[in-house]
Amino acid sequence: MTGTLFGVGLGPGDPDLMTRKAARLIAEAPILAYPALKGADSFARAIAADLISPGTEEIVIDIPMTTERAPAQAAYDAGAARIAEALEDGQDVVCLCEGDPFFYGSFMYLHARLSDRFAVEVVPGVSSLTACAARAQLPLVARNERMTVLPGPLPDEELRQRIAGAESLAILKVGRHLKRIRAVLDGLGLTENAIYVERATLPEERICPLADAPENAPYFSMILLTKGADPWL
Amino acid sequence: MTGTLFGVGLGPGDPDLMTRKAARLIAEAPILAYPALKGADSFARAIAADLISPGTEEIVIDIPMTTERAPAQAAYDAGAARIAEALEDGQDVVCLCEGDPFFYGSFMYLHARLSDRFAVEVVPGVSSLTACAARAQLPLVARNERMTVLPGPLPDEELRQRIAGAESLAILKVGRHLKRIRAVLDGLGLTENAIYVERATLPEERICPLADAPENAPYFSMILLTKGADPWL
Repeated sequence: MTGTLFGVGLGPGDPDLMTRKAARLIAEAPILAYPALKGADSFARAIAADLISPGTEEIVIDIPMTTERAPAQAAYDAGAARIAEALEDGQDVVCLCEGDPFFYGSFMYLHARLSDRFAVEVVPGVSSLTACAARAQLPLVARNERMTVLPGPLPDEELRQRIAGAESLAILKVGRHLKRIRAVLDGLGLTENAIYVERATLPEERICPLADAPENAPYFSMILLTKGADPWL
Repeated sequence: MTGTLFGVGLGPGDPDLMTRKAARLIAEAPILAYPALKGADSFARAIAADLISPGTEEIVIDIPMTTERAPAQAAYDAGAARIAEALEDGQDVVCLCEGDPFFYGSFMYLHARLSDRFAVEVVPGVSSLTACAARAQLPLVARNERMTVLPGPLPDEELRQRIAGAESLAILKVGRHLKRIRAVLDGLGLTENAIYVERATLPEERICPLADAPENAPYFSMILLTKGADPWL
């Protein structure tokens, strides 16, 4: 009997926004696996820290600080190989994933490498999208409204076109693209209604009009532009 | 001192997919409020049932079975008035909301009616979007991919246009629009890759290729069409 691989969404950062299922799986896990940016602490592990039992085996997947394909590929290959060993040994492995596993989550890389050979269960988590909206008290979509989610690194022209066609809009992974995205929104006359959210639900959370956003945004930042769901008042 | 209004996301249906914060707020709530379709049990209350303490006061907001504006408006006006009374009395009120409060959630109607007068905290929940993807084991978006969310009741022509321009796509609230949506997807040659998900995470969950979907879909059903996130294999 081989083990089961659990891909567990941890939610946006506040450990209290983890699901009960995630908390239980983490507390009972014989083996945990999680990514860590090389040389830095793992954000995923930090969210789960209070739940990890002493003596739990931990597989750290060192992710290189690059957007290039080959080094990340090699890191996930190596991580998947170590996880596969444990699964073949009959042990369950609980993979920690910030936010939701299948919504820009790192677990997708492990899922693709292991789901054809092993039993996999994916446990959804609160996504950064709805966490940012909740913290900013900004309703996203109601009734028949459309929602568009765009990653900030998209090229200017694609951003412009997609933003113009959107109804409710979230731009994720803003980071070092902030200035460029602001210019696109300025060009469309939309900056005034845009809200900037950084590290939602964490102690260092920051929420402000986009016009007041800092020069340097972290990777975990988002711009929300909602139509303002008609609440049938 | 007036009370605080909590808008609490319950997740997609499995009570285990509630956040720890939601579970604690519900268990400790002096007053709960939730919508119920007139004449039917409240799905929101059912998700939370095991956590509700005996003696908790419950405000049921009877929602009429209609998509018309005026009757729903009147129901939320009446519900908000009862909640406001409790808040003015200095009591906290915990509003239960299926899924996530600000992602097609019913709490938006109460938020719009009460947030200018009372302290409000919104607790995000696991949305149906990521819950369906998790259960179908279908990664939604990775890296720089775009996500489009469309409600099924949109008119054919708008659906066609938005679907054609989408990368990863979810069509929500399929229900009685299933046949019409299928025709649109057929016309675009996309039916083959579409997955149908009904009542995700509940015991009566159903997941199948869209081509095998039942004739009659419930309101809580979704079609997923993902690009197939490149997992950097």
